[in-house]
Amino acid sequence: MTVPDLDPLLRPRSVAVVGASLTNPTNVGSRTLHQLRRFFPGRTYLVHPRATGDGTATDLASLPETVDLLVVAVPAPAVVPVVAEGARAGIRAALIFTSGFAEGGADGAAAQEELQRISAETGMLINGPNTIGYMNLHDGILATFFLPQDIELPAAGPVAVVSQSGALATYVDELARDRGITPGWLVTTGNEAGVTVTDCLAYLIERPEVTVLAATSEGMRDPQAFVHVASRAAQLGKPFVFVKAGRSAAGMAAAQSHTASISGGDDVFDAVCRQYGVLRADSLEEALDWLSVFQTQRRLAGNRIGLLTGSGGGGVMMADVAHDVGLEVATTPETDQALIEQWIPSFGSAVNPVDVTAQAIASGVGNYQRILRALVDSTGFDCVAVGSGLRGPQAVEVAEKIAATYVEADKPLVLTWYSTNQDSRRLLVDVGVPTYQDSSRAIGALGALRRFQEQQANITAEPVRTPDPDRAARARTLLGGEPTLTEAGAKTLLGLYGLQVVQESAVTTVEAAVQAAETMAAYPVAVKVLSPDLPHKSDVGGVHLGVADGAGVRDAGEAILAAVAEHRPNARIEGLVVQQMAPSGVELVCGVHRDPIFGPVVTVGLGGVLVEVVADVALCKAPLTMEQARAALAEVADGRLVSHSRGITGEQADAIAEIMVSLGDLAVELPEVAEIDVNPLIVSSSTILVADALVGLA
Amino acid sequence: MTVPDLDPLLRPRSVAVVGASLTNPTNVGSRTLHQLRRFFPGRTYLVHPRATGDGTATDLASLPETVDLLVVAVPAPAVVPVVAEGARAGIRAALIFTSGFAEGGADGAAAQEELQRISAETGMLINGPNTIGYMNLHDGILATFFLPQDIELPAAGPVAVVSQSGALATYVDELARDRGITPGWLVTTGNEAGVTVTDCLAYLIERPEVTVLAATSEGMRDPQAFVHVASRAAQLGKPFVFVKAGRSAAGMAAAQSHTASISGGDDVFDAVCRQYGVLRADSLEEALDWLSVFQTQRRLAGNRIGLLTGSGGGGVMMADVAHDVGLEVATTPETDQALIEQWIPSFGSAVNPVDVTAQAIASGVGNYQRILRALVDSTGFDCVAVGSGLRGPQAVEVAEKIAATYVEADKPLVLTWYSTNQDSRRLLVDVGVPTYQDSSRAIGALGALRRFQEQQANITAEPVRTPDPDRAARARTLLGGEPTLTEAGAKTLLGLYGLQVVQESAVTTVEAAVQAAETMAAYPVAVKVLSPDLPHKSDVGGVHLGVADGAGVRDAGEAILAAVAEHRPNARIEGLVVQQMAPSGVELVCGVHRDPIFGPVVTVGLGGVLVEVVADVALCKAPLTMEQARAALAEVADGRLVSHSRGITGEQADAIAEIMVSLGDLAVELPEVAEIDVNPLIVSSSTILVADALVGLA
Repeated sequence: MTVPDLDPLLRPRSVAVVGASLTNPTNVGSRTLHQLRRFFPGRTYLVHPRATGDGTATDLASLPETVDLLVVAVPAPAVVPVVAEGARAGIRAALIFTSGFAEGGADGAAAQEELQRISAETGMLINGPNTIGYMNLHDGILATFFLPQDIELPAAGPVAVVSQSGALATYVDELARDRGITPGWLVTTGNEAGVTVTDCLAYLIERPEVTVLAATSEGMRDPQAFVHVASRAAQLGKPFVFVKAGRSAAGMAAAQSHTASISGGDDVFDAVCRQYGVLRADSLEEALDWLSVFQTQRRLAGNRIGLLTGSGGGGVMMADVAHDVGLEVATTPETDQALIEQWIPSFGSAVNPVDVTAQAIASGVGNYQRILRALVDSTGFDCVAVGSGLRGPQAVEVAEKIAATYVEADKPLVLTWYSTNQDSRRLLVDVGVPTYQDSSRAIGALGALRRFQEQQANITAEPVRTPDPDRAARARTLLGGEPTLTEAGAKTLLGLYGLQVVQESAVTTVEAAVQAAETMAAYPVAVKVLSPDLPHKSDVGGVHLGVADGAGVRDAGEAILAAVAEHRPNARIEGLVVQQMAPSGVELVCGVHRDPIFGPVVTVGLGGVLVEVVADVALCKAPLTMEQARAALAEVADGRLVSHSRGITGEQADAIAEIMVSLGDLAVELPEVAEIDVNPLIVSSSTILVADALVGLA
Repeated sequence: MTVPDLDPLLRPRSVAVVGASLTNPTNVGSRTLHQLRRFFPGRTYLVHPRATGDGTATDLASLPETVDLLVVAVPAPAVVPVVAEGARAGIRAALIFTSGFAEGGADGAAAQEELQRISAETGMLINGPNTIGYMNLHDGILATFFLPQDIELPAAGPVAVVSQSGALATYVDELARDRGITPGWLVTTGNEAGVTVTDCLAYLIERPEVTVLAATSEGMRDPQAFVHVASRAAQLGKPFVFVKAGRSAAGMAAAQSHTASISGGDDVFDAVCRQYGVLRADSLEEALDWLSVFQTQRRLAGNRIGLLTGSGGGGVMMADVAHDVGLEVATTPETDQALIEQWIPSFGSAVNPVDVTAQAIASGVGNYQRILRALVDSTGFDCVAVGSGLRGPQAVEVAEKIAATYVEADKPLVLTWYSTNQDSRRLLVDVGVPTYQDSSRAIGALGALRRFQEQQANITAEPVRTPDPDRAARARTLLGGEPTLTEAGAKTLLGLYGLQVVQESAVTTVEAAVQAAETMAAYPVAVKVLSPDLPHKSDVGGVHLGVADGAGVRDAGEAILAAVAEHRPNARIEGLVVQQMAPSGVELVCGVHRDPIFGPVVTVGLGGVLVEVVADVALCKAPLTMEQARAALAEVADGRLVSHSRGITGEQADAIAEIMVSLGDLAVELPEVAEIDVNPLIVSSSTILVADALVGLA
């Protein structure tokens, strides 16, 4: 995938605004031009039929240069003519604020299609319509109307935020800065007639000043680009946080009526995020919680967390959360304990959680700072979480000490600051201390960092396999015009892709059963009656298990037919089935289906009688690597399938991963295969066998 | 259980303070006396050897009356003598602020035991030591030192908060008031030498001015009292929110070192909360989120939520959360849609989420208020969630409209207000609008209300069964001195409590097998070889299933012995097993274990080969009612065991609930039974059979 060059749109050297008023400074165009002219060092033009003077033009044709970016804030009916004129004049990018397009009825949708056509034909980059624009603070560009007119240029930090929705972007902007998060980029895309959220992400992930990427979107227009961005983020070691609106049926319904986008399975999106290392947040608030930590660019050297509290109960709660998010509440090294104990009362604790007690703080904040410093400097901890709830003037004093210690340290540190004293909080967030009102969120953010680093460590450069057209051609001969393959056909197809299948044969006579058993040569076998009238074959003597040779098959067949004739004389008997005895083992399900957004998806999960009740399945987008397959398998049953002694071994996991990769290859090579359902896949000590399989064709 | 009369402690008519300084107004005793004297209409005394004047005494003996409450703020070594003197003087309650007791070494622990002894012998109510006291705002009592000295008397609302930890109580106090939550009671208990968190809860739940109860604790000293409070809360229809510190192994370890309390299984505590309708919050922040809604005392008449937003993307996110928490994003009734459509642009939506668009707000807040009013008044919605993110002066204007509409309405309404404009936020919380920064938390709080009401509806007055001493005596004859019952003994014991068990018999000859089969009269049966050397009996012809009569058993027995002799001539053959054929069906596990805190617990979950991997078990404290058993069963596999067509039927669920209740009866009647493990319990169309069971004795 080539990275879209969005420079004309997002890093223009010159901008023309159409739709700014000569008289009304509060209209959208005027507000935007005002903001652009305050900090942007490039050239700006007001385009208006009655405009005069420097930096104005009466129409696009009379501009003194071909500007990079055209900002459009005219009423809806005038938008298409203006954009078309701009494209004719060679302008390479347009930012369209005007609403009332695809989101507002048939006329609007037609106009939006016209914009899409212009973009497709001329290559013009179109952001919007119905966008609120963007902020590129690194270059002083406030190409938006939503900010207060007298705002100072906000600080440009390492975070880049992209949002389809303008309102959600303003939420992020308002709350992020309140918390000391400093997005250097904030880009909205609105109706996406041209440029999409993923286009912007693909552009921004390559920007050197961007080290954290965050995005929210209601739809997923270009899944391949999303995967590309995720892969690039992983390669570059930049956390990529995504909040997807439209997780649930209710949310998807709202998103469809709102953006007319199609939606895929949320479980598939979730799986794709994990597969490619995207950190999916459940809410914007959670995303902001994480960004506070990610933007510091501090990293964990291990999972040990030191907890500092003035309250025993608070320390217990912090330990709970640390455990929840996979951090270890390690014991304070003895030398550090000795150090700390000289500064706390005997009824405090230096062990971890380090409980300085309320008295230690009351007796002077100097010791408090020394204790915090001891934790931050300790070789026993890879990160530190501090909880404090002081009020009054001492809050500011303690905040100053924490801020000073934070700045000098380089370990990840989070702070739960439940004083509502705004001065003390401001002081902390202004120096970048990740500061929260609740320890579950503070330590949860460290947990996100841990997860990011763990995913990073697991993402390998392993390539997916190249499709094999010869194998695909052989397979295609098996696929008739029927919607579903026969069971035999399904097993042959799977065999072609390297899966081992249980052999079986349905016959009409005892002699044929003996012949079939000898041919398959997979003793011991089971011999069963074949009858539509006997659902419980065992109860009427219709099943013999563990038959060891041909003579045994003959005896069993005769005994079965006799027993059935005696117990169920009226049952229709169609013959016998000879079946390879599947060794006993763990029963899994494995399969393929196609997601409307992301295409072929491989599934793996627990099988057995209660498969639908257990409903524990992990997913992986195809094509997939062995590493990705193993990671998906490691999610089944909260990890217990691979970690519990009654689960599967490492070798079995590798063999199952190989099957998953092969099913993914099959799905990629044969688009006409709509779904595959292997149930059960029997995992025994010696083999991994497909006992039954269903293949549905498109 | 009798409710402890805490009036002398928490509603005293007179208070004496020992430990206030005559010269230092900032010491703990002085601060407390100052606060008491500001608002408390009762009589207060400063007790100090050199004190003179009105409202003082030189020692406890010279007080002009026997006060209700003694406040102790003397150094640790002086505490026991002062309390003992108070008890001798007939004072009925003591509040001890001093630290350094059980939390601070052997001397402190001994002193605390002395306090416990005084409490036990004299009946004196002891709150503390190491407590920060309490606020009873209904009676103007600030019996605490932690508040600013010039604080105005906070508003007394319907919420009562009880916390073991003082620091967590100050957290709640600070943040609750910031959010417009007005606890009328805030009680801390510290080291709990006498009065515990549950004592206070048992007292407060009966107070008429208290309609919402919230508590946090690191330990659980009196589980029976906890269950009592939960039951009373349910009876009285008062929500009871609990945050337990010490959920995880790491948290429990911290709690044990901090409070020396024992801990039980967190899954058991969780189950007890659900069983008795306690709303367990994961964090203090979540508890506060819920209290904002609960304190309004507005209730849901149904599950339909109306969503009002100015942003399509925001509406999608709100719909997601609503779905997550079990609220239905119902379509706006047509008449209301028509009403709303006149006030929004054509590219908005009146359907639900109702998207007024940013323009509608910009064009005047009057219409915004009308739309909100339409939603609140609509017969199509049982509650309303509003999301808004305005800034600048309009934020205050919109906030005023929302506040006015809220006050006039009686439906539950929550607000996501992501403006950081503090004036607008203050205005909203001051009239009681539940206000949040993120829609996931706002709508999550409505979800907690839904859950509370649903639990209320399900809590019945069904009594638990009376123990049956005769049955217990009969059962006791089965329990020998061994640590584990034999399988036969276990099955007999379970049979005595009404469970149906699979019959089987081990014999040494073919003739004895025939005899055994005839005696059990439960055809069809299985005949199997009994040998320590043949783990895979089926593979060597050692199993015949579905044997229909005595003659068949003889044939099967002979065939088995012949086949085994042929295939495994060296295997030791001990005989044959004749076993009732368990019908095929869903395999569950069911059992009993004993929690260190809550005692006997009944478990039920999914069985099968992967039982440890699936690890999906629901719990219920014994004794239990049928309703409680059914509710626990309905949690298995996220509800799919009872709701999915491949799961169990309603009749089967009732029968399994009956088994759970019986196992609970057994556990209550036979304390010497340490654990029971029924695995599998086979649920077929005709019976529910114990196929195998293990009974461990204490």
